[in-house]
Amino acid sequence: MTTIAVIPGDGIGPEVIGPALDVLEALGLGVRTDVLDHVNAEAYLRTGTALTGADLDRIRSGEAALLGAVGDPRLGDTPYVREVLTTLRLELDLYVNYRPARLWHDRLSPLRDPSRRAIDCVIVRENTEGLYSGIGGVTRTGSPQEVAVDVDLSTRHGVSRVLDFAFSVARRSVCLVDKANAVRNGGQLWQRCWSEAVARHPHVEASHLYVDTAALRLATDPTAFDVIVTNNSYGDILSDLTAALAGGLGVAASANLNPATGRALFEPVHGSAPDIAGTGTANPFGAILSVALLVEHLGRTEEADAVRRAVAAAVATGCVTPDLGGSLGTKEVGTAVLAKLRRP
Amino acid sequence: MTTIAVIPGDGIGPEVIGPALDVLEALGLGVRTDVLDHVNAEAYLRTGTALTGADLDRIRSGEAALLGAVGDPRLGDTPYVREVLTTLRLELDLYVNYRPARLWHDRLSPLRDPSRRAIDCVIVRENTEGLYSGIGGVTRTGSPQEVAVDVDLSTRHGVSRVLDFAFSVARRSVCLVDKANAVRNGGQLWQRCWSEAVARHPHVEASHLYVDTAALRLATDPTAFDVIVTNNSYGDILSDLTAALAGGLGVAASANLNPATGRALFEPVHGSAPDIAGTGTANPFGAILSVALLVEHLGRTEEADAVRRAVAAAVATGCVTPDLGGSLGTKEVGTAVLAKLRRP
Ligand SMILES: CC(C)[C@H](C(=O)O)[C@@H](O)C(=O)O
Ligand SMILES: CC(C)[C@H](C(=O)O)[C@@H](O)C(=O)O
Repeated sequence: MTTIAVIPGDGIGPEVIGPALDVLEALGLGVRTDVLDHVNAEAYLRTGTALTGADLDRIRSGEAALLGAVGDPRLGDTPYVREVLTTLRLELDLYVNYRPARLWHDRLSPLRDPSRRAIDCVIVRENTEGLYSGIGGVTRTGSPQEVAVDVDLSTRHGVSRVLDFAFSVARRSVCLVDKANAVRNGGQLWQRCWSEAVARHPHVEASHLYVDTAALRLATDPTAFDVIVTNNSYGDILSDLTAALAGGLGVAASANLNPATGRALFEPVHGSAPDIAGTGTANPFGAILSVALLVEHLGRTEEADAVRRAVAAAVATGCVTPDLGGSLGTKEVGTAVLAKLRRP
Repeated sequence: MTTIAVIPGDGIGPEVIGPALDVLEALGLGVRTDVLDHVNAEAYLRTGTALTGADLDRIRSGEAALLGAVGDPRLGDTPYVREVLTTLRLELDLYVNYRPARLWHDRLSPLRDPSRRAIDCVIVRENTEGLYSGIGGVTRTGSPQEVAVDVDLSTRHGVSRVLDFAFSVARRSVCLVDKANAVRNGGQLWQRCWSEAVARHPHVEASHLYVDTAALRLATDPTAFDVIVTNNSYGDILSDLTAALAGGLGVAASANLNPATGRALFEPVHGSAPDIAGTGTANPFGAILSVALLVEHLGRTEEADAVRRAVAAAVATGCVTPDLGGSLGTKEVGTAVLAKLRRP
């Protein structure tokens, strides 16, 4: 039997995981869930540990994992969020962060020109190195001579594999985004790996943009892009930008993948949103669409498409939360999606 | 007599510098120009050097410098562009990159919601450290074990001074943009310097966003921002994004400043645009508005405002190049701005 580890987390995390699990259940795939509801800020505040070895073992023993959101205003600047997310990404070696952005309804686009609204692209973000290497330090802390260093790490191992993944999911084209004209060392390594990857995939259109130009192009004409592959830091920034162009963080879903081992963690892109936690108005689409990605990962493409169609139908009929201009709550939107799923 | 060093550069650089110098001349400030027209890709191809010590001396002996654009497709991945721009920024210790974004006409906004179009903000980008430190290297080049490292450097000296500058130019508010939740060492140094800078400027509203959220907010509601202060890399990305929201790179002007020594270099944000070089259609507004910043730097606020009003009038009457939806060439737009300047 397929088992999914579920980490509801903090704030709106548990609120959006509810409807997402209802959708998973309604698909009738006979998936068992192993809920780790002790992985959250409360526990971290009490014990100082976010994820134990035993938690990681439970997560590893499932087919995949689903995370709501982590983060708590009481923990401010402590490494809690980073510890949960980065530990999961590194310990499971989830080297791909797959972040699709698709406009579910024309009404949701912030762009003025109708011909440039239909965004349907994917950010493939390297998820285990770059500026998230954790290497670095601070010296002379607090003195006028204080110096801090963070290492932006690129390895051929890490870069080649994420480039190959990007090509493997391309429908039309892959665009490499880097800053090889200014950040020379990693830039050159990415460029070398890129030339080789392009040669390995002669049937996919390949292009290259510097990250500043990529941000500019996305903001003016996102329809120009299919797959964008980039490093950890630029992927973080550009995926929030594409989310903005596709209706906001509320609808953004993501997968953290290791295509070699098959390990996978799915999560909405939004955080724990303490400002609206408890109000019952959090948008469940990010979590529900993360379930669609999970179901697709399990090989159930048809069911994944059914979930996406149900979300599209809910959006089209205005069954949406306030962030999308609607007046429904999290649960009502979940119910609407279930209804559309049952009677498409 | 005031002397300005002028580097027309490559591609459309000389084409846009022409009208920009005409505007400067028309202001009747009696400014002398010292044109370094040998600083370009041709010379670099011949000599392997972009900027000599003598060039730097000439630039240093002027009150300010004006640069068109550098870059040449024949030089592809060589460090030429970086050498010119980074050398100027580092040698003159121009620690502030000041990049205003103002929508000159509602028609130019890519945003759909009229209430969110009126962007009028400034990116204050740290210009001498961060990922542009030049520190790092590659080892085992070409082997499967290849590793590249680039150092993201933050110093209290560098961070404090740019934060103070940001507060000094704020009209309403300053928003710090960083990624202190993931890039911990520099992030914490910026946060420490930020707390102190906020305390030094109690009358300015201060806020903080992570860079991914900042990109998302800018793309949906840029009117929320006044001054954004950030590091070299995020400033590079976000200033192209704000340029996109204010009509594109063609209208974006910038100043590289050392407010302590008074040294300053002004340049349009666009590059040498080899694709349109020689066609006579490059937009001169970026260069002309860089002259406005230069004139303001010389203490001539009224003249700077007159230049901006002339540009606004040219835009309002459709005297614009193709990138802004018009049909005029670079020279005709320059002539139109001169006419508006003479008879406002
Ligand atoms: C050309 C490049 C090195 C440069 C930079 O990143 O600083 C440019 O993009 C800019 O913003 O002035
Ligand atoms: C919370 C933060 C560390 C995280 C990241 O930058 O990876 C988040 O922004 C994301 O994109 O998943």
